[in-house]
Amino acid sequence: MSNLEPKADIQKLIKKKQFAAINQELEQVEPTEAATMMVALSESDQQAVFKAISSDIISKTFKHFPHHIQLNLVRSLEIDKKKMAEVLNKLTPDDRTAFFIELPESTREDYLSLLAPKELESAKQLLSFPEESVGRLATTDYVAIRKSWTVEQALRHIRRFGRDSETINVIYIVDENWKLLDDIRLRELLLAEPERDIESLMDHRFVALDASEDQENSIRIFREYDRAALPVIETDGTLIGIITSDDILDVVEEEATEDIQKLGGVEALDDSYIETPLSTLIKKRSRWLAVLFIGEMFTATAMGYFESEIAKAVVLALFVPLVISSGGNSGSQAATLIIRSLAVNEITLKDWWRVMRREVISGLVLGGILGLMGFLRVVVWASAFGLYGEHWMLLGATIGIALVGVVLWGTIAGSMLPFIMKRLGADPAVSSAPFVATLVDVTGLVIYFSVASVVLAGTLL
Amino acid sequence: MSNLEPKADIQKLIKKKQFAAINQELEQVEPTEAATMMVALSESDQQAVFKAISSDIISKTFKHFPHHIQLNLVRSLEIDKKKMAEVLNKLTPDDRTAFFIELPESTREDYLSLLAPKELESAKQLLSFPEESVGRLATTDYVAIRKSWTVEQALRHIRRFGRDSETINVIYIVDENWKLLDDIRLRELLLAEPERDIESLMDHRFVALDASEDQENSIRIFREYDRAALPVIETDGTLIGIITSDDILDVVEEEATEDIQKLGGVEALDDSYIETPLSTLIKKRSRWLAVLFIGEMFTATAMGYFESEIAKAVVLALFVPLVISSGGNSGSQAATLIIRSLAVNEITLKDWWRVMRREVISGLVLGGILGLMGFLRVVVWASAFGLYGEHWMLLGATIGIALVGVVLWGTIAGSMLPFIMKRLGADPAVSSAPFVATLVDVTGLVIYFSVASVVLAGTLL
Repeated sequence: MSNLEPKADIQKLIKKKQFAAINQELEQVEPTEAATMMVALSESDQQAVFKAISSDIISKTFKHFPHHIQLNLVRSLEIDKKKMAEVLNKLTPDDRTAFFIELPESTREDYLSLLAPKELESAKQLLSFPEESVGRLATTDYVAIRKSWTVEQALRHIRRFGRDSETINVIYIVDENWKLLDDIRLRELLLAEPERDIESLMDHRFVALDASEDQENSIRIFREYDRAALPVIETDGTLIGIITSDDILDVVEEEATEDIQKLGGVEALDDSYIETPLSTLIKKRSRWLAVLFIGEMFTATAMGYFESEIAKAVVLALFVPLVISSGGNSGSQAATLIIRSLAVNEITLKDWWRVMRREVISGLVLGGILGLMGFLRVVVWASAFGLYGEHWMLLGATIGIALVGVVLWGTIAGSMLPFIMKRLGADPAVSSAPFVATLVDVTGLVIYFSVASVVLAGTLL
Repeated sequence: MSNLEPKADIQKLIKKKQFAAINQELEQVEPTEAATMMVALSESDQQAVFKAISSDIISKTFKHFPHHIQLNLVRSLEIDKKKMAEVLNKLTPDDRTAFFIELPESTREDYLSLLAPKELESAKQLLSFPEESVGRLATTDYVAIRKSWTVEQALRHIRRFGRDSETINVIYIVDENWKLLDDIRLRELLLAEPERDIESLMDHRFVALDASEDQENSIRIFREYDRAALPVIETDGTLIGIITSDDILDVVEEEATEDIQKLGGVEALDDSYIETPLSTLIKKRSRWLAVLFIGEMFTATAMGYFESEIAKAVVLALFVPLVISSGGNSGSQAATLIIRSLAVNEITLKDWWRVMRREVISGLVLGGILGLMGFLRVVVWASAFGLYGEHWMLLGATIGIALVGVVLWGTIAGSMLPFIMKRLGADPAVSSAPFVATLVDVTGLVIYFSVASVVLAGTLL
């Protein structure tokens, strides 16, 4: 809940061209709400508002706009280069990085040229880190102090520069080369005698993120150390910025979305489903579908081998979908559980044997349950409706035994494939539910017809 | 990275019974690392260490232990009730709630009786909120001030009580009934003249979470407002605690795990995969597998209807797995994309028609691609290996047309089922990949054999 409901109807104010009132209105609401109000406007209204409101409001709400509106916004200021430069300079460094990385190279250069020297330097540095790296998320809005200062000097510095910083819970101590020496909580400074040296408060123990590290790893570190913010350093120890845990929230959601999409047999989308152009969406789905289709073609080959058996006992064909899909379903379950456990570091590669033992037992029990259900399905239907010919008991046994084998195999394959993928350096999420199902379909057919040829030899076959 | 490597081998110290040194060692490292070191010990070593180290260290590291070790730890202090009480009283309120909710009712009462009156009151209040609610996550370690105070009084109060608070970036202003009136940033206090009234600094605008609200909703609010901490209030506006965004990180990971498990056709596990007892694991998997199996039984029924067609043209049976699994795979893709988009609020119920249009086009294109591949598979194999009899061209057409229909249907069913589930008030994630695949298998068979009976009428059939 929030008590921040807007008090005026912005659309009415636009009609009346009362832009001063709009400015005042937007200043009073939370940036995220101001953004929501502006996104809801028509494109021409948006442009009119952007031109009229202060660069302060624009820079604060900027991160809450989708990229295409950000771009429209900056373009609409084209006729007022001064304001455009103001906006770009006032953006927080991490919001600016997020905007710039989406731009084509040439546009990016144009906009960079509008930045003040200090902002330009920080923007270039943050853009120099690889995509998906921790450095790309960093903001330079933190407070750094020197160890030679007194507590009083430090507090004066914080009062002066703390206003624009994302957090002042933690203050960073750096040397003359901006190498990170320590972190210190503001509360420690507030509680210390004003004339004490900062150095005397230092414990030289801190946790920092490596700028070139993958963002995914930073999630683990934030969860482990329960920090609201962590410093980001380069390999030589130079402090380049901080990351706050609310930025990590976005990373966690995005990583989970990517994993979920891969598990569903889709390549990870770069944007949200609804913002992804249809052509991209189809491309990302068709590649995996085609690969799975080629894999699934082997089912036709496998069934071809058993064509004469099917001709002799057509009744066998009726249960093909039931038997192989059970293997696929149990395989999907196992793969999903293991992939997620690997992703959140609950288990690692060395746990494979422990997992294998659990999954063999699970597979046998689950196979036993489905096998019994399959056997009963045949027996009950045969007795009740006189279906499946004179050898219905043997057919029931075939289905039951095949199900135990197929489910056991599906469970083992589904649980071990993610380990194999990880061992090979691939993303375990690639062994998605559809992928496992396809693999198990082909082998499931072989298991089914092999069981049939043994059990039904001399009767149906 | 971190520069917090432990300096001594704790195992050696235990052997030498140097518990004072262990205490010192554990005091110096981060709580999370101290916990990791202790978890690695044997159970008897753990108990020896727990008895020897200070209650301060135990209470700080407590949250980093798995629940069964927490329980062992508290039990090992049974002979030293005084220390046991110390530990329980020193726990932060949110860590205590997390420990207590896992306990059976009777044990919980025993432990509650050890708490000091103030701690007892806060523990009872936090435990009174429903499971999975925001209130269960709240901690009472925040700083609250009165509007009638001066800035100087407020800062004195913060210096005195801020030490134990989880964040002092934001200070909360309450009235005599502890009703939340406003929040104020510490930096504003630091920058204001000491003799000013707090009331004059208030803007009466704040965002708060409702204690009885679902934790999942709080994720959205944290992401939207980019806050490091948010206050939690009861319906009447009483402030009961705060939640920090690093706690929300855990919620995000857990919610994603639950969604992923449901998508894989497993009931959500309460613990991690490896900590879940095998019997629970099997129970949670077998229920869904059995439901899917019953659904899949209809494939045998559906194929029974076409038994005479199969007997006449056994070749039709060979392509059953290929055709129906393509429908299942395209359905899984669509369902996964839509379920995730609904979960993170990228789309809502009212977008169903927009999604439908996109998915119909996607389904036609994807069906066209697979249909062509299927047609070519039959035609090429027939030409190359002389398979599939004299009517191979018609068979190819049957497979191709059926694939277009099955993939289109799979895509529509997969994308619309999550909307239907949500509309019915169920969790969209229930329409998991295996669920959609099963549904599409049965209908896919009907589509396939219907196409066959039209295309092959007068030739094979």
